[in-house]
Formats: sequence, C-alpha cells, structure tokens
Amino acid sequence: MSNPGRHTMQIGAHALVFTGTFDAAGLTLAIEKTKKAGFDLIEIPLMDPSSFDRGLAASLLKEHDLAATASLGLNESTDLTSPDPSVVEAGERMLTECLEIVHAMGSSHLCGVIYSAMKKYMEPATAAGRASSAAAIGRLATRAADLGIHLSLEVVNRYETNLINTGRAALEFLDEIDHDNVSVHLDTYHMNIEESDQFSPVLDVGDRLGYVHIGESHRGYLGSGTVDFGSFFRGLARIGYDGPVVFESFSSAVVAQDLSRMLGIWRNLWQDSDDLAAHANLFIREQLRSVQSIELH
Amino acid sequence: MSNPGRHTMQIGAHALVFTGTFDAAGLTLAIEKTKKAGFDLIEIPLMDPSSFDRGLAASLLKEHDLAATASLGLNESTDLTSPDPSVVEAGERMLTECLEIVHAMGSSHLCGVIYSAMKKYMEPATAAGRASSAAAIGRLATRAADLGIHLSLEVVNRYETNLINTGRAALEFLDEIDHDNVSVHLDTYHMNIEESDQFSPVLDVGDRLGYVHIGESHRGYLGSGTVDFGSFFRGLARIGYDGPVVFESFSSAVVAQDLSRMLGIWRNLWQDSDDLAAHANLFIREQLRSVQSIELH
Amino acid sequence: MSNPGRHTMQIGAHALVFTGTFDAAGLTLAIEKTKKAGFDLIEIPLMDPSSFDRGLAASLLKEHDLAATASLGLNESTDLTSPDPSVVEAGERMLTECLEIVHAMGSSHLCGVIYSAMKKYMEPATAAGRASSAAAIGRLATRAADLGIHLSLEVVNRYETNLINTGRAALEFLDEIDHDNVSVHLDTYHMNIEESDQFSPVLDVGDRLGYVHIGESHRGYLGSGTVDFGSFFRGLARIGYDGPVVFESFSSAVVAQDLSRMLGIWRNLWQDSDDLAAHANLFIREQLRSVQSIELH
Amino acid sequence: MSNPGRHTMQIGAHALVFTGTFDAAGLTLAIEKTKKAGFDLIEIPLMDPSSFDRGLAASLLKEHDLAATASLGLNESTDLTSPDPSVVEAGERMLTECLEIVHAMGSSHLCGVIYSAMKKYMEPATAAGRASSAAAIGRLATRAADLGIHLSLEVVNRYETNLINTGRAALEFLDEIDHDNVSVHLDTYHMNIEESDQFSPVLDVGDRLGYVHIGESHRGYLGSGTVDFGSFFRGLARIGYDGPVVFESFSSAVVAQDLSRMLGIWRNLWQDSDDLAAHANLFIREQLRSVQSIELH
Repeated sequence: MSNPGRHTMQIGAHALVFTGTFDAAGLTLAIEKTKKAGFDLIEIPLMDPSSFDRGLAASLLKEHDLAATASLGLNESTDLTSPDPSVVEAGERMLTECLEIVHAMGSSHLCGVIYSAMKKYMEPATAAGRASSAAAIGRLATRAADLGIHLSLEVVNRYETNLINTGRAALEFLDEIDHDNVSVHLDTYHMNIEESDQFSPVLDVGDRLGYVHIGESHRGYLGSGTVDFGSFFRGLARIGYDGPVVFESFSSAVVAQDLSRMLGIWRNLWQDSDDLAAHANLFIREQLRSVQSIELH
Repeated sequence: MSNPGRHTMQIGAHALVFTGTFDAAGLTLAIEKTKKAGFDLIEIPLMDPSSFDRGLAASLLKEHDLAATASLGLNESTDLTSPDPSVVEAGERMLTECLEIVHAMGSSHLCGVIYSAMKKYMEPATAAGRASSAAAIGRLATRAADLGIHLSLEVVNRYETNLINTGRAALEFLDEIDHDNVSVHLDTYHMNIEESDQFSPVLDVGDRLGYVHIGESHRGYLGSGTVDFGSFFRGLARIGYDGPVVFESFSSAVVAQDLSRMLGIWRNLWQDSDDLAAHANLFIREQLRSVQSIELH
Repeated sequence: MSNPGRHTMQIGAHALVFTGTFDAAGLTLAIEKTKKAGFDLIEIPLMDPSSFDRGLAASLLKEHDLAATASLGLNESTDLTSPDPSVVEAGERMLTECLEIVHAMGSSHLCGVIYSAMKKYMEPATAAGRASSAAAIGRLATRAADLGIHLSLEVVNRYETNLINTGRAALEFLDEIDHDNVSVHLDTYHMNIEESDQFSPVLDVGDRLGYVHIGESHRGYLGSGTVDFGSFFRGLARIGYDGPVVFESFSSAVVAQDLSRMLGIWRNLWQDSDDLAAHANLFIREQLRSVQSIELH
Repeated sequence: MSNPGRHTMQIGAHALVFTGTFDAAGLTLAIEKTKKAGFDLIEIPLMDPSSFDRGLAASLLKEHDLAATASLGLNESTDLTSPDPSVVEAGERMLTECLEIVHAMGSSHLCGVIYSAMKKYMEPATAAGRASSAAAIGRLATRAADLGIHLSLEVVNRYETNLINTGRAALEFLDEIDHDNVSVHLDTYHMNIEESDQFSPVLDVGDRLGYVHIGESHRGYLGSGTVDFGSFFRGLARIGYDGPVVFESFSSAVVAQDLSRMLGIWRNLWQDSDDLAAHANLFIREQLRSVQSIELH
C-alpha cells in the first residue's frame, strides 16, 4: 500500500502474543507466527535467561529473516533498587547474561523494566535505591556498548514500578546515569495512565526516545480501547523517531504464569493470536501512513 | 484477517476517489480500481444523468463483481426547496430519471443531498420550501419502492445545505415525509462539524440509519484528521447497523469541476488514488474488527 | 451560571482531597473545605470504622449543610472473597458496622471496593470466592435496605481487584447477587484503563448505575490527563443518571499511608487542595452544562 | 481559583455573543455584558466602519476597564484578492480606516479574514490575487506598525476563503508578505475542519501565532461539540503563547444578518448569551489551569 522505503522504522510484536513458554516449541511458534503476521521484528522476553536457547533463537531468526529485540522485567530477587547488595548484584549478573544472549541472537536492543522490579511496590522508591540502580545501569550500559547493544528503560505505570512512571521522570533518571547508551522506552498503555496525553511526552523525550511499545488501554485489540494513537504517532513523526515500534498485548488466552499474574491479566481480551497480530501489524502501518500523509496538507 | 462472515455490511468507495469524469473511460477506471483496492461496493455520483451510460455501468459492475449505489446533490435548477414550481418539477423529474438509472445498474440505494440544492445558501430554509421538498421526496419514495430502491437523505454541514445539518433534524424531516422507504444518511465529515460527537447521533438515528459515509475532517486520508472514528464505529455496532459504509475523499488531484468547487476542494490532500483507497479499505475494516473485539471484553 | 434546578444530581468531593486522617481535626477540615470549594456532598472513606466519630460527622455535616456518602476498600483481613470463612465473617461484620455509621451520619450511600480486598491480587478470582462475596453482599444489601442505604460496587482496574474490572462484569456479578439494593459504581479513572471507551459502559450499565467517581487518568487535575470526560458526561445524560458525581484525586501532598501506598501514589500531582477542588467543582458543573446544551441542537 | 498572575494572556469574547448591531445601544450592551461575564477583553467586529462610533467605544471600554481588539471579514467589494484594482483599493482604504478606529479605541490588534473576502468562493485562488493581497497586507502592516497595531490573519475553512485554510498555508503567505508586524490567527472551529489535529498546527505556527479564537465545532457551547480543546491548550502552553484568547460563538438567537447568513448560522445553538458567555469564560480559564498543572507532573 504505502511506500515502505519511507519508513526505516521496524514494526514488531511481543512474543507473548503467541506463546507463554520459551522452550524450542514456543520460540519456534512465536517466530514463525510473528513473521507470518507481517511484522519485521519480534521482541523476546528473557523470562528465564539460564534456560534460554540463544543459538536456536539466532538460527530461527535468520531462517525467518526476522529482526529481534529482548526485554525484561526484574523481580524481587534481582531488583537493582534493593537495599540488599546481594540482590543488586544478582540483578546485574542476570542482566549481564541477558546482554550476552541478546548479542548471541544478533540483536542490538535490550529494554523493559530493567532498573527495578516489575511489581506493585508497597512503598515509595528511596534515594539509595535509585542511586544503586542508576550506578548499575551505568555499568551495564558500558558493557552493552561493547557488545553493540543499546539499553532502553521502560516507563511503566505506578502499579508496575515506583521509580519511573513518566517520560520526564525517565529523563531525570537518565541524567543521573549520564551514559549515552541508555534511552527512554515509552509504552502507550502506560502513558495512557500516567502522562498528560500521548503527544507531549514524545516531544519531551525527543531524541532520547529509543524504543516504543504500542499497547491498548486494556492490552487488547488496538483500536478497541481508550488510547489516543493518533496523537502518539503524530508525536513520533514530529521528532523523527525511526526506532522499533512493537505491539504488546496480553490476554488470559496466552499465559506466562508469573508475568500474567504480575500484570493482572484476568480477562480474555482475545482468543485468536493470529487475528490479533495481523490486525495490529496493519493497524500500526495504517497509522504511520495516515500521519505521513499530513506532510501533503 | 477477521471473519468476514461476521460483517454483512458492504464497504465501499466513492467513485470520485478515482475519477472526476463518468464517460466510459472514467467509469471503467473507477470500477476497476475500486475493486482492486479491496472494496465491495462503489458509489457512483450521478452528476449528469442524461449522459450516463447505465448499461455499461451494469455490465462493468457484473464483470467486476462489485455492488453499487448512486448519489446526488441537487443544484439551483433542480432544488426541491425552490419557491419556483418549475424548478421543483425539474428536480423531481431528474431524480425520477436517477431512480431508473439506479434500477438499471442493479443497485438498490440512492442517497445524497436529494432534498435541496447542495450549495452554500445565503438565506435560511423556509417552511414552504421544506414542505415542498418533503412532498416531493414522499412521491419519489413511492416510485423508488416500486423499483426496489431505498432513499437516504444525507445530513451535510451548514455550508452545503440550509435544511438538514444534524441527525436529529433529519429525523424531524423524515417525520414530515412519513414514508418508510426513506432513511438517514450520516457522513462523519459533516458530523464532525455539526454534531455533538460521533457516537450520540448514531444512537439518535438508530434504525432510521440507512447509509454511511466515512470521510476525514478535511476529506483526506482516514486517520490524518480530527474525526473520532472510534466513537462512530462503536455507535454503528451498538445499533446493529449493517448497511453500506462508503469512503469519501476529495483532493485537487482528482477533480469534477462543478462539484469540487462547490465543495471548496482547494488543496491537494493526496495524489495517489490507489494508495488512498487501499488505505481506506483497510482502515475501515480494521476499525470494524477493533470494535467487534469489544464483545469479548 | 447554569440553572441549578435542572440538575438534581449532587456533585461531591472525596475527603482525601483534603485530609488523610479522620480524627476530629481531619474530619472538620475536610467538611469545611469541601463546602467552601462549592460541592454539594462529601464522600468519607471509612478507613478505620471503629475509631470514626459518627456523631461528630453528623453534626458537622448538618452545620455545613453538606450531604455525605461513605466508601471503603476491604483489605486482606476483611476480604469477602477469601477462602477463610473467618475473614469473610470479619469483612461482613465490619461492613455491617459501616452501614450503622452511614446511617448515623444521615447518609444513604455506601460504595467502593466492598466485594473484595482492594489490592494487587497475585492470582485470579475463584468461583468459590466470587460466590462467597455475592452471598455476603446480598445479606448486607438487605441490612442496608432496612437502614435506607443503597450499596454500589465500584468497578476498579486490574491492579486493585481481580473480581470486577468492567461495567459488564459488574452487571454479571449483580445478577449473581440478585438484590435490587445493589448497583454499579463507575469511576472514570478505572474505566480509562479497562473499558473500550467512556460512553459505552454507561449505556451498558444504564439504570443499574448508582454512583460515579470522576477521576483523571493519573488522578490529578481534571483536564490534565487522558480521560475523555466529554463522552462520559454524554453517556450520563443519555441514561438520565441523577445520582452522586464525586471527584476523586490523589497526590503525595495528602497521604493516608496504607491507602496511598496501595494505590501507588508516588508523585505529587498537586499541592494545593483548595485550588484543585475548586477547579474540579467548576470543571464538573461546566461539563454538565455543556452536555445539557446539546438538547438545543 | 488559580493564580491569575501566571497567565499574562487575556481572555476575551467576541461581541456577537451579545449583539448583532453596533450602534450605541448594541455596543454598550456588548461591553457591559462581556465584562460581567468575567472576560478581560472584547473583540469588536468592524462590520460597518463608517458608522462605528470609535469615541463611544473608547469611553465605554475605559469605563468598564475592558481591553479590546477588532476583527473583520472582507466582502466582494473590498476583496484584496480581486482582479479588479478598484476593489483592492477599496479594501485597502477600508482596512486603513479600520486601523484608525482600532487606534482610536485604544486597541492594538486587528485580525480576521482581512486578506480576502470571507465567503464561499466558487473558484480557486489565483497567483495574481494572492500577490495582490500580500502586497496590500504588507502596506497595511507598515501603517499598522506606525499606529502600534499588530495584524493577524485568520485561518478559516474552505467555505469561508480559498486562500488560507491551514496554519502552514498561513506561514507560506506570511513569507510572501515578509513583514514582522503580521502574524497568524488560529481558530479552533476552523482547525477542526482543516488541520490534522489541534496540537500540531500550534507547534507549526509557534512564535508566529498572534491571535486565537476558541470556538466549538458547531459554534455553540464549549464542550458540546467535537473540538479537542485539551490538545489545543497543551499546544499553546508548549509554545509559550501569551496573546489574546477569544471566545467566538454564533446562534440564530443573536444575528447580524449579512454575517450570520455568510456563516450559515441556521440553528439555535443557544438562547441565553449571559449563560453561554459565563460558561465559556470559566471553561477557558479551567482548561488553562488544567494544562498549567501538568508542569507538576
């Protein structure tokens, strides 16, 4: 339809659209179906790095000519903001292993909630926890740079972290890290809860924007919720963003037990992953084409 | 992608997306390209009924397995609200001819501004003009019913008629006509100017809704303007609308001189009809699929 | 400005806009300031029923000519969905005490998350827990009816309950309770996360809607977030809702420790309660007036 | 409510909210009622400059401590884009007289459709007409500067001019004028029809924005139509706009015959000017306060 040469950005899907398990069968299914749905890229959640078969991932991606990124949410035993140094150390060690996996898969992006646990905290963030995380991310950014990998910190809502809930809070945190290999990862689902609108934060973050998640307000079909995608894509065009744009959706139809429960996925918002994914791929490309046409006005 | 069996509605395009002339070449081009863009239906403007080749239209439609509807805007010499009886008579005669063309094409819908001139009036509608139009439409509705054709009155903005600018005003006019073969034709472009929102008028009109135009706020690419399509399609689902849904767009790239000037098409909002149309076809089907998924919530 | 006689609904504020403590000083402050900001009604959270001075509340409300409602979120020790019968019993006992407090205050509404704990659950709701809650709510509804009190069940987002996240889910639960003294409590903040839009759920719930919270997407100033208030108020007008409409907002500037942490109030979205409240009171009344004017169109 | 010191911008109302005649009685009424509704400023349409009592206006404005601006739409006999030099000359002469009136009233702004007729053109603008207008505006800008008056060119929809329908088109025209005493006048009513959204054009125009009209999509009560005011005011805050912000509304309840018919005011969207105006004044100030609060986020 539109001139694909105009878009250098890659459109992707989160693997959890297709599978909640990442053994050989799950990985194969997710990669095949992501490709089939029309995406350029798959985001693979590194839910259990130690058991993840990076070699298989690399060969499947190559076989299906699909790009990849990796993402992660820390948990209580790997929380970089923990007052317990051994927990921080465990987190840093785990993230270092993830960087190696990302490298082995031939990918150049690691993103997500990699700066704190992804959970409903029951107390505010502390200055010490924040400093601990910033320092660790700084060290990881250096290691990532050596491997040709870029880090992006996902801004999530108040129920999933106590540290970075808005784009502007992310910029402040980046200032504390002060490493040019770290950028901001915005997600429309979280923005819909925490930001003033879908346009302003994109302008605020500007060229510090490194990664984008496209999710509906209830994490179901794009266009079936309250997210103002039009404003978000207008913002992306205005700042000239050309990085990954990745569809994320969750339903009780496809479950990764720990993650799904942490995210409160109690409802069945879709049943057919293939239909959902094909719809999302077209939806995103249609929106980009719509916004691109504004140049002519 | 989605289950087409779920949608009995037909998705169409207005022929002026492709051509401003309706000789054999123009008609052939429009029908071929409408089909190629993925639509089920073409809306053909009967700009010059006397020269329109109904037989050719019928055979082209059959050849390309495309449904058709016809539309019209009256002008000063055919205005059913005119104080001059000979003008009203001319309008009624012309519309009667259009019904015969519609029938000959194998179509069952005639819609548009068929109750007044489509122009910027310089004075308010009069009671007499209104009554004259209602009476004429009533007679035409009877003739149309004989031919198996349904009439829909298009609600347009204040600059294109002085008679029916809102869905509720259309319902009042239908009450005056009091003929069940006439219904309301809503157009998102006009609703964006005249209605309180895109949801309420659909509920107001309810089962009196007979025809739908999908147009952007500036009549360009869908999604590149201010129309709240999400609300409109939610409204359609709520009332169970299953009639035609027709994309309409105008640019100075494709011109029908009189019509384009009447509509104030001064800008080039698109250049490539094929890209525009393919985009619109997918955009509408995507929106329908999004809204359909809400059933699961 | 507008004709107040047209609105029989009462516009209120949640007491936590002004205070996080409900001793005599806190209660006095909240009631005085709610009145001063222009509201008709205060919603008092019964955070610690046993220490709440119902007599003082009643006399302050009378003195300031302010209506009141009461709300509540259960916790783990009073969770009506708990598999532990003693917890359910504790919850029912506590809610019964709340009904007596509500009655003593001269109020006729108890609402909130009174059917489960208000917390981030880590597992889905169970059929047994659901049935336990429905049965208890049924008994409480009978007791409430005796006291002239109406119950409304607040629909909250996935991070605050696992039981009722949408208006339609609330209707299903009401069917299980089958008692006409229980209705649905919608909150725009939660709807923004869980519903398809702000209009449809109001239509879905219809005359089962008994209570309304007006909150912004991030719980700050109305109009500074992503909630589509226009659609919500259009929905209210369409169903003829005339019950309480209560502003709710949270900032780290005013804290009730347990509640604030449960709700993830990490940011300072406002500092001046008086300015916030006066703004909200006008904002809500302005929106009602805007929507009322649509009748004329 | 909010800290007025934070807003240096002046909030105003168009006089046609109150009167369609500008004799002594009409002028007095409009000024008194604009002040009473809470506005800082009145915009006076110079519909018939030769009969306008500038001295009375000046003394009434002083008496009521109200600021003023003036606006204008040219007509066919004063159209600066006309191929007839005598028409252009008449337009320039009339606008020169208007500048003198503006000066005599103690005002420093003249805005509106002062570059072409305000009418539904039946043909596109021509290069010659455009050049003629740009040259005339350039000369008028010099004269205006001498009098301490700033000119702003109102961007209106396709049915009201064929020359400047978007902010970007206005910028191009400003380039042709090349005089720093001319800026862009945006109107949310027209933007809703012609622009991609309410945010982008404000960013596009940026510091060339000199004047703002706040109008609903159907020109009735603010908040009762489709205009996305939230985005517009976020845009204003982002560019630091601090000029006039003027409410404009039309109903068949208050009529200036020629203007009302040109604008297609066929419906009664409001009846009570005082209620409408007080509502608009609060609505605008509320929106500004909402957006201002975003700084805290």
